[in-house]
Amino acid sequence: MCQLLGMNCNVPTDICFSFTGFQARGGATDVHSDGWGIAFFEGRGTRVFLEPKPSCTSPLAELVRQYPIHSKNVIAHIRKATQGVVGLENTHPFMRELWGRYWIFAHNGNLLDFTPELDGCFIPVGVTDSERAFCWLLQKLRRRFGGTPPAPADLFAAIHELTLEIARHGEFNFLLSNGDWLFAHASTKLAYIVRQAPFTQAHLKDQDVTVDFSDMTTAADRVAVIATLPLTDNEAWTVMPAGTLWWFAEGEPVQMLETRPGPEKKPA
Amino acid sequence: MCQLLGMNCNVPTDICFSFTGFQARGGATDVHSDGWGIAFFEGRGTRVFLEPKPSCTSPLAELVRQYPIHSKNVIAHIRKATQGVVGLENTHPFMRELWGRYWIFAHNGNLLDFTPELDGCFIPVGVTDSERAFCWLLQKLRRRFGGTPPAPADLFAAIHELTLEIARHGEFNFLLSNGDWLFAHASTKLAYIVRQAPFTQAHLKDQDVTVDFSDMTTAADRVAVIATLPLTDNEAWTVMPAGTLWWFAEGEPVQMLETRPGPEKKPA
Repeated sequence: MCQLLGMNCNVPTDICFSFTGFQARGGATDVHSDGWGIAFFEGRGTRVFLEPKPSCTSPLAELVRQYPIHSKNVIAHIRKATQGVVGLENTHPFMRELWGRYWIFAHNGNLLDFTPELDGCFIPVGVTDSERAFCWLLQKLRRRFGGTPPAPADLFAAIHELTLEIARHGEFNFLLSNGDWLFAHASTKLAYIVRQAPFTQAHLKDQDVTVDFSDMTTAADRVAVIATLPLTDNEAWTVMPAGTLWWFAEGEPVQMLETRPGPEKKPA
Repeated sequence: MCQLLGMNCNVPTDICFSFTGFQARGGATDVHSDGWGIAFFEGRGTRVFLEPKPSCTSPLAELVRQYPIHSKNVIAHIRKATQGVVGLENTHPFMRELWGRYWIFAHNGNLLDFTPELDGCFIPVGVTDSERAFCWLLQKLRRRFGGTPPAPADLFAAIHELTLEIARHGEFNFLLSNGDWLFAHASTKLAYIVRQAPFTQAHLKDQDVTVDFSDMTTAADRVAVIATLPLTDNEAWTVMPAGTLWWFAEGEPVQMLETRPGPEKKPA
């Protein structure tokens, strides 16, 4: 399995503190040593750093940890391979363009017998179930809405419907963003925290590092951090119930929809 | 205008030496300070580093210069903005997926009145003429060959035909790769060198750095380096004539086609 880290903010914010704790789980304080990656949106542009090696000993991860890139949406992933060899082409997050915007996707879980028909618009480059699910999801969004991006609520409803279909095949925790919003699915395990004024101190679980957010924020700042497991040990994280899909915008959740399959309907 | 750097090899090779000279042109020994980027293919995977700042003072460029990433195909670019503001979304090289492979593209030049119809398969995220040309080129390749990648010679012939169409609109030096091959168009200015046994010393033009390739190669290694202007001052670079499109594979040019428009044909 893998671990996910996401950030959605109302002002461009750096993720150095959270990434410090997350990076340690890639081979030091935890076992996810088959690769790591992080994607930053900066306006419409994206920067994606990928490495098919443990993050805890990577000079590139060290640079990312120390180099404050200010972003409103970030998605990071550390990998413990389930499907697909260890290799750059199988390293999350994945990126595609749809409707003239980049889309970023990372997955924690394992999908079985998920081999949908792909029409050629989005084809996986690697061999993971994760990239296949991402390609299929984008294909379905394009087929449904054509060449014009839908209203945000319609987009969220469509992602909800597609998540239900994919989640039938297994564990499907994911983070998805187009730079405007961050969508997070808690299939089994995901938690979040919203940091806003009055800002206080936070202390990492995985390293003895404390930060005082009141030193570096303004009263209007709002930052949502989403992670497989809480990153700090002195803050109140909200555990997202298994089977919930969340839409984050401007640093807070704006809508949640359930994705637990209801009782199966018997044919009449 | 901008500058281009490409590398195509028969064994995965690092580009640290060439990038050292190239990086200096991004604001130190030359004026291309509006951003830089470099893409490495590692198997089917790619890593793209982008920054909308001068490369000569960038900690990220410094890491790339020192961090030996072994790749058979590399494309790098330093930008002096002509169309599109300085911003991450307008920073080369650009990436898209076609036929389950990543494609990387960087452009030096300026296209005027190039506003082709795009069918929605590939839409620019930024506002450069370069990304528009890349999206249109991939759209035409997909329309022509459908869901199946063509034989390499057919692909090269199609790229040649499309280059002719785009080059009518202005200066169109470019590098394009899918990880297997590197295509290079000398619209006005491009040069290359093939390094192979017996390897010798090379000395950079832009920094007083010498490398002895015989220390780090085997007799079978072959590396083609393509650049807007030669990077070394003691090697024999081949200037690619204006109006030529080149196909590089396994570290050497395998085919060249002319792209100079012939005399206009009058209707009979």
